[in-house]
Amino acid sequence: MNLNLVQFDEREQLRVLDQTQLPNREEYVTLSTADEVADAIRRLKVRGAPLIGICGAMGLYVAFRTLVEKDASDAASKLQSCAHIIANARPTAVNLAWAVNRMLARVAQLSDVGSILSALKAESLLIQQEEESTCEAIGRNGNTLIADGMGILTHCNAGLLATGRYGTALAPIYAARQSGKNIHVYADETRPLLQGARLTAYELTRNGVPTTLICDNMAASVMSQGKVQMVLVGCDRVAANGDTANKIGTLGVAILARHYGIPFYVCGPRSTFDPHCATGQDIVIEQRNPEEIRSAWYAEPMAPQECDIYNPSFDVTPHELITGYIREDGIITM
Amino acid sequence: MNLNLVQFDEREQLRVLDQTQLPNREEYVTLSTADEVADAIRRLKVRGAPLIGICGAMGLYVAFRTLVEKDASDAASKLQSCAHIIANARPTAVNLAWAVNRMLARVAQLSDVGSILSALKAESLLIQQEEESTCEAIGRNGNTLIADGMGILTHCNAGLLATGRYGTALAPIYAARQSGKNIHVYADETRPLLQGARLTAYELTRNGVPTTLICDNMAASVMSQGKVQMVLVGCDRVAANGDTANKIGTLGVAILARHYGIPFYVCGPRSTFDPHCATGQDIVIEQRNPEEIRSAWYAEPMAPQECDIYNPSFDVTPHELITGYIREDGIITM
Repeated sequence: MNLNLVQFDEREQLRVLDQTQLPNREEYVTLSTADEVADAIRRLKVRGAPLIGICGAMGLYVAFRTLVEKDASDAASKLQSCAHIIANARPTAVNLAWAVNRMLARVAQLSDVGSILSALKAESLLIQQEEESTCEAIGRNGNTLIADGMGILTHCNAGLLATGRYGTALAPIYAARQSGKNIHVYADETRPLLQGARLTAYELTRNGVPTTLICDNMAASVMSQGKVQMVLVGCDRVAANGDTANKIGTLGVAILARHYGIPFYVCGPRSTFDPHCATGQDIVIEQRNPEEIRSAWYAEPMAPQECDIYNPSFDVTPHELITGYIREDGIITM
Repeated sequence: MNLNLVQFDEREQLRVLDQTQLPNREEYVTLSTADEVADAIRRLKVRGAPLIGICGAMGLYVAFRTLVEKDASDAASKLQSCAHIIANARPTAVNLAWAVNRMLARVAQLSDVGSILSALKAESLLIQQEEESTCEAIGRNGNTLIADGMGILTHCNAGLLATGRYGTALAPIYAARQSGKNIHVYADETRPLLQGARLTAYELTRNGVPTTLICDNMAASVMSQGKVQMVLVGCDRVAANGDTANKIGTLGVAILARHYGIPFYVCGPRSTFDPHCATGQDIVIEQRNPEEIRSAWYAEPMAPQECDIYNPSFDVTPHELITGYIREDGIITM
C-alpha cells in the first residue's frame, strides 16, 4: 500500500497529503497557484528534500496552467513569476531550486503555450519517477543485507513521507517485506520534532510493517536485549571521508550499535555525497529554536523559561562508526 | 537557596510543594488529614522515595494531631488508622512504609497523647534530618571528584526535589557550587516523563547552577564536543555485583561516556545497595503505560493508535561501565 503524497487530481490541480496533520488525520489539500504551492512547502505540509523537489516541479506546472488557462498572454513572464515564488518557499532546500531550474531549462527553447504545458507536465512526472527509481534501487541493494527475522532500528524519518515512495532508510525495509521476509522495526521517536513517532511509526504501521515505537533513550535497552541486528538511518550530507551529518541522535545510535556489535548503515542517494566537503568538521550544524524542546506540542512549557537549552538539528557520525553506505549504485564502504 | 518541599506551617499543618505544577507554578498545598497526605503522595504532588518517606512521617504526626485535637479518646486506634491510610498511599515505595513503621515503633510504649504527639513530631524531624545528612555526605564525597570548570551531565532527577535537600546525583553539584567551583550541568530531559526538563532543570536554575537542557539524543553530540568531563546519575537499586537499575536511558549514557572516556558515577545511599540481589539480571524492570509516550503532555496523540510502544521505566547498567559509586560512607569501586 502506498500513500499518494503528491499527485495531479482529475482537474489537473495538485493534491498533497498535509503531513502536519499526521498521525491523527490523513487530510489532503488541493493547490492550484504558485502561492498555494509555496505556502504548503513553507508550512511543512510537504517535507523531506526529495518530496519538496517533486512538489515544486509538479506545482510549477499546475500554477502555470492555472494562470495561462485564464489568459495565455505573456506566458514567459508568468512562468518565471511562478518559478520564483515556488523556488523561494524554502531557500535552503537544494532540491527545490534544483527541480524548478530543471523545469525551466526543459522549456527554455519552447514558445507555444501548449507545448510548454506538455513539457512541464512530462518533466515533473519524470523527476518524480527518477526519485522513486533511486529509492527503489536503494531498497533493492539494502534488502540484500537483511535476513529473515531481523530486528532493525531506525532514527527520524527517511521514509516514503520524505521522498514520495519507498524512502531511503526505510526503502530496504519495504523491499524486505515485499520479498516476504519477517522483520521487526524499532523506531526512535526522535526528539524534539518527533519525526519517528509522527511519521515513521505512522507510515510503517500504515503499510503493515511490524513496528515498535521507543523513546530515543530506550535504544540501548532494546539493543542490550538482543532485539536489534541492524541499524538503518538516512543522511543529510556525507563528507568525502564518509563522515555523515544526519538528524540529531544518529551519532548516539551509532556508538550504541558499535558497543553491541550491530552493523550500522547509512542510506542515501549519491547526490547526498559531497566531494567538496572533506570531513565532518566542515559540515556546519544548524541550531534551532529552543522552544521546540521547551514548549512545542505541549499544553504548557515543560522547562523553566530561564533555562538555557541546546537544540542542534543534526550531529555528525564519524565514518569509523559506519559499517557501509547503501546507495542506488550499490553498497559502499569507506 | 533551598525550596521548602515539606514543612510544618505555623498551625502545625503540613505544607508541601505541589511538584505536579512544576516548572510553571510554585504552588503549595496544606495537608492536615491522613487522606489528604495519602492523596498528595498518590497524585505525585510529592515524589521521590526519600521525600515520600519524610512526607509520610511528618504527615502522620499532623494527621494524628488533627484527630486527637478534636477528641482525644481512643488515641491508639486513631494513630493506627492514620498510619494505615498513609502507608498504603503507594504500596511499592519502600521508604514510605519504612518511615511510618519507624514512627509507630517510636511511640509503641507511650500512652499519654501529649507524649505521643511530642515523640511523633521529634521522630519525623529526625527522619527528615537523617535523609538530609545522608545526601549532604554524598555531596561532600562527590565534590572531591569535581574540578573547577567541569561540565557534568546528569539524567532524570535525583535532586533535592526527590530527597528534601541536596539530592543524590545533584548533591555533589550543589556541594561543588557551595565550595566556589565553576561547573556547568547538562541535563537530559528524560523522556517520556521529562523529569530532567520539569524537575532537574527547574531546581538547578532555581538554585543558580548554570544548566543547559538537552534532549536525551543530544548527549552524544555534547560529549563529542568535549563539553562533559563527568556523568552523575542516581540509582533505584544496585545489585551485589554493582549492576545498577536506574531511570530508562541511563545505560545509553553510560555507553556514550565509556566511548568518550568520561568517568561515569552512580550516586545513592547505602540503603539502595541490595545484597540479596546478585546481578542486574535479577532486577525486574517495570513496564509502564504506552500512553506516557503516545499522548501524555500533548494536545493530541503524537503516534498512531495502532502502533506498538515499548515503555520500560528503568534499564540496568552493567558494573563494568560504572567508574564508581558515590555513597554517604565514601566512594566505592567494584
